[in-house]
Amino acid sequence: MRGLLVGRFQPFHLGHRAVVEEILRSKPEETLLLGVGSAQDSHTVDNPFTAGERHEMIVRALADLPNRQWEVIPLEDIHRHALWVAHLESLLPPFETVYTNNPLTRLLFENSGYSVIAPRLVDRGRFEGRKVREAMATGADWESLVPPPVATFLRGIEGPSRIRLLAAAGSPGGQ
Amino acid sequence: MRGLLVGRFQPFHLGHRAVVEEILRSKPEETLLLGVGSAQDSHTVDNPFTAGERHEMIVRALADLPNRQWEVIPLEDIHRHALWVAHLESLLPPFETVYTNNPLTRLLFENSGYSVIAPRLVDRGRFEGRKVREAMATGADWESLVPPPVATFLRGIEGPSRIRLLAAAGSPGGQ
Amino acid sequence: MRGLLVGRFQPFHLGHRAVVEEILRSKPEETLLLGVGSAQDSHTVDNPFTAGERHEMIVRALADLPNRQWEVIPLEDIHRHALWVAHLESLLPPFETVYTNNPLTRLLFENSGYSVIAPRLVDRGRFEGRKVREAMATGADWESLVPPPVATFLRGIEGPSRIRLLAAAGSPGGQ
Amino acid sequence: MRGLLVGRFQPFHLGHRAVVEEILRSKPEETLLLGVGSAQDSHTVDNPFTAGERHEMIVRALADLPNRQWEVIPLEDIHRHALWVAHLESLLPPFETVYTNNPLTRLLFENSGYSVIAPRLVDRGRFEGRKVREAMATGADWESLVPPPVATFLRGIEGPSRIRLLAAAGSPGGQ
Amino acid sequence: MRGLLVGRFQPFHLGHRAVVEEILRSKPEETLLLGVGSAQDSHTVDNPFTAGERHEMIVRALADLPNRQWEVIPLEDIHRHALWVAHLESLLPPFETVYTNNPLTRLLFENSGYSVIAPRLVDRGRFEGRKVREAMATGADWESLVPPPVATFLRGIEGPSRIRLLAAAGSPGGQ
Amino acid sequence: MRGLLVGRFQPFHLGHRAVVEEILRSKPEETLLLGVGSAQDSHTVDNPFTAGERHEMIVRALADLPNRQWEVIPLEDIHRHALWVAHLESLLPPFETVYTNNPLTRLLFENSGYSVIAPRLVDRGRFEGRKVREAMATGADWESLVPPPVATFLRGIEGPSRIRLLAAAGSPGGQ
Repeated sequence: MRGLLVGRFQPFHLGHRAVVEEILRSKPEETLLLGVGSAQDSHTVDNPFTAGERHEMIVRALADLPNRQWEVIPLEDIHRHALWVAHLESLLPPFETVYTNNPLTRLLFENSGYSVIAPRLVDRGRFEGRKVREAMATGADWESLVPPPVATFLRGIEGPSRIRLLAAAGSPGGQ
Repeated sequence: MRGLLVGRFQPFHLGHRAVVEEILRSKPEETLLLGVGSAQDSHTVDNPFTAGERHEMIVRALADLPNRQWEVIPLEDIHRHALWVAHLESLLPPFETVYTNNPLTRLLFENSGYSVIAPRLVDRGRFEGRKVREAMATGADWESLVPPPVATFLRGIEGPSRIRLLAAAGSPGGQ
Repeated sequence: MRGLLVGRFQPFHLGHRAVVEEILRSKPEETLLLGVGSAQDSHTVDNPFTAGERHEMIVRALADLPNRQWEVIPLEDIHRHALWVAHLESLLPPFETVYTNNPLTRLLFENSGYSVIAPRLVDRGRFEGRKVREAMATGADWESLVPPPVATFLRGIEGPSRIRLLAAAGSPGGQ
Repeated sequence: MRGLLVGRFQPFHLGHRAVVEEILRSKPEETLLLGVGSAQDSHTVDNPFTAGERHEMIVRALADLPNRQWEVIPLEDIHRHALWVAHLESLLPPFETVYTNNPLTRLLFENSGYSVIAPRLVDRGRFEGRKVREAMATGADWESLVPPPVATFLRGIEGPSRIRLLAAAGSPGGQ
Repeated sequence: MRGLLVGRFQPFHLGHRAVVEEILRSKPEETLLLGVGSAQDSHTVDNPFTAGERHEMIVRALADLPNRQWEVIPLEDIHRHALWVAHLESLLPPFETVYTNNPLTRLLFENSGYSVIAPRLVDRGRFEGRKVREAMATGADWESLVPPPVATFLRGIEGPSRIRLLAAAGSPGGQ
Repeated sequence: MRGLLVGRFQPFHLGHRAVVEEILRSKPEETLLLGVGSAQDSHTVDNPFTAGERHEMIVRALADLPNRQWEVIPLEDIHRHALWVAHLESLLPPFETVYTNNPLTRLLFENSGYSVIAPRLVDRGRFEGRKVREAMATGADWESLVPPPVATFLRGIEGPSRIRLLAAAGSPGGQ
């Protein structure tokens, strides 16, 4: 039995960690597929980190969990919403349950016959990707919003400075 | 002899119907190609319906016209405006006249030697795709803006609820 | 009720016409969608004619049928077979039956729950796209293999000379 | 520390399993990334199975190994060899060693400064994807060429019949 | 020895010319590659002119320079920033120095080991592509912002009227 | 006035040089655009060298010509022959004459109203890209088939060993 949780994880924060923990606890027999959405994107304001960097964040953030009951899988966008479920079905091993609070994800998977569960969000006011990125850009406290190993990783790759730079940069090549 | 009218038809409304009727009346010897633009898009705020759903709307909306003097053709975007006319010429059977009020469509086709006619728009203040979508999203009266068979079809596929959902959803997969 | 017949129609020959006639006769209440596959391709050895030229061939070849019980729809390839049915479902109005003798088409549609019917092929030894193209390339009799209006059309666009040229040309730009 | 082994795994056979075992044994401190190449392809003669099906095969084939020292990651093609290493670097978490017997893979990674190791191939005459697929197509013994759980899985999804069908089918849609 | 300056040059203005002149003066032994970014785009508000039109502008704008110490090269976007440097390395002859004031361009090239120099911008308040396009759209004085041969060229292709039209048009095909 | 010569130049050989020389001699008032076709491809059997490497070969091969009457421009494929001329028109500055011996290139440009000239080929039996690549692969004499500066360049980048390797390699990632 497998479940699927898709997110962009830009970056992987404590809200993500709480959702993963709750799913793993409530479904000890399931393997959770962590789909890294928009895997092809990086170095943009909304998607500053590569799929590989996000993969690394997740591995570090979940390293202390007792069982290796999860897998990380990059998912490139297909940009055609009507094909999105078929796209994921072709890339992923079989899964039965989808965890999402995104209403379009719910609609598309329900139309294809999947069971969809809305995970309880923890303190959504604080733990939201956009807010973490803004805190990194403005020099506000962001480290308390992510698991400590993610904070260490992001400092190591100079994540905050990359995010500040992207806010000013637009696309490469523009003069 | 064929004419071409390209639109996104999100959804097909009474303004579209009036334009089609006027063209068919004024050119009884022409077949009108109804090109469904951005055919690859669906389930977004600006393009909520698939090309197939839009095709179905058009067939129902025009079913009472006396002659089958029109054809519906999905047109995927090419995202390179300088190639757009060549793209359409390769996908469509030969046509001589283009009907449009879009100044870029006019420019591109005139540069390629086509005859371009601006159809008279009926009550543009009311009959505009964006306004119909907004009425569907907000629960205002939208049914009087589309041909009755289109209203029936859109209720059947729960169009208003899809549009409301899309306004809240962004892309699938985002958490 | 609609049925779907997908082919590349390079060119539309008497075998295609026979299949269409039989489907229309056996299902007088159905509209037949004629999907023009590989619509984006043209000017190659296997796909010499544009989707628009193939559309024109079909319209001329079927003009003498009593009812306009069919529609022509260009279908660009998606190059991912696992998404092909979802791709067609998004582009086409609803259809219930698929007509095909291609075993992969059958497999993919049956996996998605469609009813698939294998139309009886007429004299497959003669009426096959590849053989018609070869006859055009070698100067053998090809005109008796296509409906007379298609022969007229193909002569008008110098189809045989295009096919001979393509056999020698490879891609444009190669020296 | 991570190593990377990229293959198409169509299907995952005993030669793959032997290579994985040897790498894991020789590098007990490494995590091995199993990159599933041409992840977007399926239902073709050379790539009959989806990335998800191949993922499932690998998980089953390696389930009896003592440690979960490996990860499976789908890799869509980029079709530009000069960008292939950068493409993989963006999708994968950091890795230091590449295992390959493909000379182009070696060249591209060495040009980018990676350490490349050629794993010893076991009985290449028998254990080769193309030969396994041919055995499945012709009804020869293929089950002894793959790990028993892969044989069970492939029978369950009617793999041999899919492969026979693909040999006859070409692309979907062709008539 | 070669240097690289990437810009969209929509249009090529006096600020571009000043930067080119300073680079050529300071590096008389270098050939300067002028990469025309977003080469695939045209007929949009931000990218009104084709790569070919921008090429022509540059050739005319620099025709009076004493040596032909520069080359113009169209660069199609790759839309994956992590691959952008590899993309340019594959398309361009070898270069050692990159001239840019864009912080993302600097970051990406420095990460790949290039020497990056920030050219001194001349009167950035006036000489900026967006401002030139706005002046063309509003009928303000734009001719003093571009080299005289560029002004002549833009008048010849009716550039200002194209820009005004694009502001009103959106994409072709929308009704 | 400009002319256009498109080739893949894999590699640039003495036959190419002879054609360029003859064009420049016969049209002293023209600038010759040397379009490097299939610019996105490299590291394949048919396209071993990147567009940048081919650019470098051309610059070196023509460095001794008296006037800089030519430009090198990479041209990525569009894979839709019906759009190929429009694609080139958007990427290239205006040109009036096309030089080609490829019958499809001739057909497509003549259909768009261009003047097409077939350059005289010199000793086609020897000077042909495929034959030069084969000589490089087999260790036969290839150096006498290319301009001496190209031979020097190809030795410097270990071209012959790359070509031998590609013949054995297929795509990267295959095991």
